[in-house]
Amino acid sequence: MKVSITSGRAEGPTKLNAFDNALLNAKIGDINLIKVSSILPEGTEVVPVPKFLPGDMVNCVLAYTSSDVEGDLISAAVALATSDYFGCVVENTGINRDPEDVKNEAESMVRYMMDVRGLNINEIMIANESHIVKKQGAVVASVVYIG
Amino acid sequence: MKVSITSGRAEGPTKLNAFDNALLNAKIGDINLIKVSSILPEGTEVVPVPKFLPGDMVNCVLAYTSSDVEGDLISAAVALATSDYFGCVVENTGINRDPEDVKNEAESMVRYMMDVRGLNINEIMIANESHIVKKQGAVVASVVYIG
Amino acid sequence: MKVSITSGRAEGPTKLNAFDNALLNAKIGDINLIKVSSILPEGTEVVPVPKFLPGDMVNCVLAYTSSDVEGDLISAAVALATSDYFGCVVENTGINRDPEDVKNEAESMVRYMMDVRGLNINEIMIANESHIVKKQGAVVASVVYIG
Repeated sequence: MKVSITSGRAEGPTKLNAFDNALLNAKIGDINLIKVSSILPEGTEVVPVPKFLPGDMVNCVLAYTSSDVEGDLISAAVALATSDYFGCVVENTGINRDPEDVKNEAESMVRYMMDVRGLNINEIMIANESHIVKKQGAVVASVVYIG
Repeated sequence: MKVSITSGRAEGPTKLNAFDNALLNAKIGDINLIKVSSILPEGTEVVPVPKFLPGDMVNCVLAYTSSDVEGDLISAAVALATSDYFGCVVENTGINRDPEDVKNEAESMVRYMMDVRGLNINEIMIANESHIVKKQGAVVASVVYIG
Repeated sequence: MKVSITSGRAEGPTKLNAFDNALLNAKIGDINLIKVSSILPEGTEVVPVPKFLPGDMVNCVLAYTSSDVEGDLISAAVALATSDYFGCVVENTGINRDPEDVKNEAESMVRYMMDVRGLNINEIMIANESHIVKKQGAVVASVVYIG
């Protein structure tokens, strides 16, 4: 399995459009995302976001939040951990929380997931994004499963 | 890719059963719906809802809302836009909003999605439904991806 | 189609980790769950949860709730019904409700789903779980579609 890790943020005329713009900013806006939980098969390789065909069906773990309150600080993070065997992914979001905390919490949650499974971590990768809302804002962070 | 656009509404003894009845009313109640976001591949054709086999796994964009407050006006809408290249879909719902506004907002959001992607719209299609709740009511609107 | 019905409960250092631990407790923690609604194809057979490969993509109906309020009684239930033709599944959850009510409500909802479809029930199976929260607790109940 190849996966990519990415994040994005945007404003838009509605919260849905801000979300869509944030997906475009993360380079995963022209595909059909199917949300899954949270395990990376053995031998997973992390690669840059590929050029998808528009409308491709793509499984992903997706952290997403939005707000229409001016000045809100919105954050999204995903963390993935790999081992010699299989790996784990977590998503995390926050509104008006320190983005560093949202990121660190994602890391600590994925470390715990690996720990309860007795998996020794080879590598941790995190994608995170934060944004101060002007009118309607959204942030996304995602691990997409490429196949 | 062939897709269908449909909507439905219903009452039921619980909100979940009202939702299920609304799916039946929309002719998509006997399948397994998998929610996806929101892109139509190049060459997408819109066709009437086909006769599925019970239990088929079917990707869809689904707008859904329900209420158990007597007199609530609930609305759901999906809007799809096609171009010579690829297309977009949005979902929208409202409670005690003018159903025409919910529908128009869906249209304006899908127009914006096409616009930010530089796609010239060939056609817009909308399915929308509204319902005044008696006991437990639900409305759905959906674009289902047939394959 | 083969399906399995299972449930689990757990505490964890965060609500997400409690959820993950509950999935592990239900023997479906090492896979990627894709949520679907709620129909069992003709000829569905219910089998024990198989040994999945870590990271398998698995469709499921998932009832899930969590709480970080000490003393909360949290419950999740799924009910499936089979017939000579096809079958139905429902999910149900509750916080500080009698777990027996959450279970019975799931059963009555799936009976109603079969009834509106004119299907004579051969068998009903229910998986349910409840848990009194210590710090962060989660319960899950699921019907997983094996293929």
